[in-house]
Amino acid sequence: MRPALSLRIYRNGQKCFGPGIAQLLHRVREAGSLRAAAAGMGMAYSKAWRILNETEQALGGVSLLTRTTGGQHGGGAVLTPEGTDLLTRYTAYEAALQAESTRLFAAHFSGTAKK
Amino acid sequence: MRPALSLRIYRNGQKCFGPGIAQLLHRVREAGSLRAAAAGMGMAYSKAWRILNETEQALGGVSLLTRTTGGQHGGGAVLTPEGTDLLTRYTAYEAALQAESTRLFAAHFSGTAKK
Repeated sequence: MRPALSLRIYRNGQKCFGPGIAQLLHRVREAGSLRAAAAGMGMAYSKAWRILNETEQALGGVSLLTRTTGGQHGGGAVLTPEGTDLLTRYTAYEAALQAESTRLFAAHFSGTAKK
Repeated sequence: MRPALSLRIYRNGQKCFGPGIAQLLHRVREAGSLRAAAAGMGMAYSKAWRILNETEQALGGVSLLTRTTGGQHGGGAVLTPEGTDLLTRYTAYEAALQAESTRLFAAHFSGTAKK
């Protein structure tokens, strides 16, 4: 047996962050482009925009990306300092919680007959 | 901001336990009846049966309840020792993980501008 966690963060009773937007931001940081990030997740560009905008609103109006349109490479995106900060905190929090989950599961389910 | 966890346990790649069946078993233990447990969750008796049977199969054929039919009180159910053991472990594991989640969230998200 093994545990599986699903982690969401709420603000004012509304979901404001989770694994989907985290993966999207992570890919933006890698690829330098929201379009490339969406494509890498098999996600429509329009959906990536919607998720990004909903997240920014749910966070109280924080800008997560700095968007550039046009230019030599057809536009790109980089994380704002706030976006980088949030992604860094979330990633570290999730990794620490996953490690605790594994440890606690072993502690509580050791010795069960059915593995 | 606050975190929300959703916890599932998998066995052989299949979901075998989670908060729904845990609540159902907890209520069976309180009420002494699967029918009363289902009613207390606003769940159809047939659905409670289905969830119970699917869980028992996913766990590899463990019996979680001892069912009694008929009799003076129209039948009842009590947890088997295996059912009690699993519910006890899961409940303790989930509580410990929730506590860790709260602690880790505070550690990783302290000092963020938007609460």
